[in-house]
Amino acid sequence: MSELAERRKRGRPRKEARSGASARAAILKAAAEEFAERGYEAASLRAIARRAGVDSALVHHYFDDKADLFTASLEAPLRPDRALEVILAGPHDEIGVSIVRFLLEQLENPKAQARMVAILRTALSSGPGSRMLREFLTREVFLRLATAAGGDDDARLRANLAAAQLVGVMITRFVLKLEPIATAPAEDLARRVGPVIQWHLFGDPSQPLA
Amino acid sequence: MSELAERRKRGRPRKEARSGASARAAILKAAAEEFAERGYEAASLRAIARRAGVDSALVHHYFDDKADLFTASLEAPLRPDRALEVILAGPHDEIGVSIVRFLLEQLENPKAQARMVAILRTALSSGPGSRMLREFLTREVFLRLATAAGGDDDARLRANLAAAQLVGVMITRFVLKLEPIATAPAEDLARRVGPVIQWHLFGDPSQPLA
Repeated sequence: MSELAERRKRGRPRKEARSGASARAAILKAAAEEFAERGYEAASLRAIARRAGVDSALVHHYFDDKADLFTASLEAPLRPDRALEVILAGPHDEIGVSIVRFLLEQLENPKAQARMVAILRTALSSGPGSRMLREFLTREVFLRLATAAGGDDDARLRANLAAAQLVGVMITRFVLKLEPIATAPAEDLARRVGPVIQWHLFGDPSQPLA
Repeated sequence: MSELAERRKRGRPRKEARSGASARAAILKAAAEEFAERGYEAASLRAIARRAGVDSALVHHYFDDKADLFTASLEAPLRPDRALEVILAGPHDEIGVSIVRFLLEQLENPKAQARMVAILRTALSSGPGSRMLREFLTREVFLRLATAAGGDDDARLRANLAAAQLVGVMITRFVLKLEPIATAPAEDLARRVGPVIQWHLFGDPSQPLA
């Protein structure tokens, strides 16, 4: 992600800086409209370029792919798709704890938390934001988790249940602000929730947990 | 709960039926206002009676206690406080699975689901409904869970984590409607989520789950 941030900062040459920034802003605005109207699946980078009145190549200059443009248009405080790629390639036994640790560490910052709360509220609303977020998560997050968990229907359900535990932790900690979960150290939660994520994804449901 | 429903149906004698129904409606309206303004903790049955322009005794005639009036004013599709009392008094090893089974069975009905979705959205909003629901859940649900789990600070955190898993299941199943969790049989979910609830509440967090 820092490589990307650097590339964005470097951006265009100085004399084009202003028009570059405004082109990027136009693309983000067009993307937000396109995703809200058509959902994440049906939205295309080509249609977003057309809507923004820029060449498709310029969209690819600023954004790596659809997931990158989507998360930028949402001002998402983290990139679950990229993090998962790294975590799933790491030690198998630590996948659950790494996912929880990543999520909570990225959300330590109050601005990141506030943005995540806004995104959660959008996801849970009855508006169009709910569909685009569901489609993004299904395509870019749950599919990766389900593939890691075995790839069949059962794995898809287990990926949903892992996601349910994570969504529940974010909601009780950052939205409802229940105590003591709201102020518990991230590492304590990683230690307690990590094994649950691991079990949902890879455990044997016929075996008792306790 | 059926005893209560019967008592309400029996209600007042026929000739008082109309004024009885309107008094009950006035109490519910006053309760909704009082809970929204003052939260669950600070609201009192006496203040609600005053606001409704009825005698306190009439509030007690229609409603057993504050939790009863609160859930009636929300048209809550289930009574987590009462269910927990019964479940926690049952077999210790089945507490987790019984909680999940109760929750999902009560929400099989589409009307109950729709009502629960509305309540979840209120809880997650930035409005006053969020506070009153957080206070109700803390007082009437999490405190019972935490007491069952040992009663100390650690037990309070474990009760929060169990609640987080349950909230996450409701949100992914009924609000986000992710597949396959949205259409999975309740009993499959009880079998998979029950052990997680049991482990959060009573398991040894220093032991691996898998």
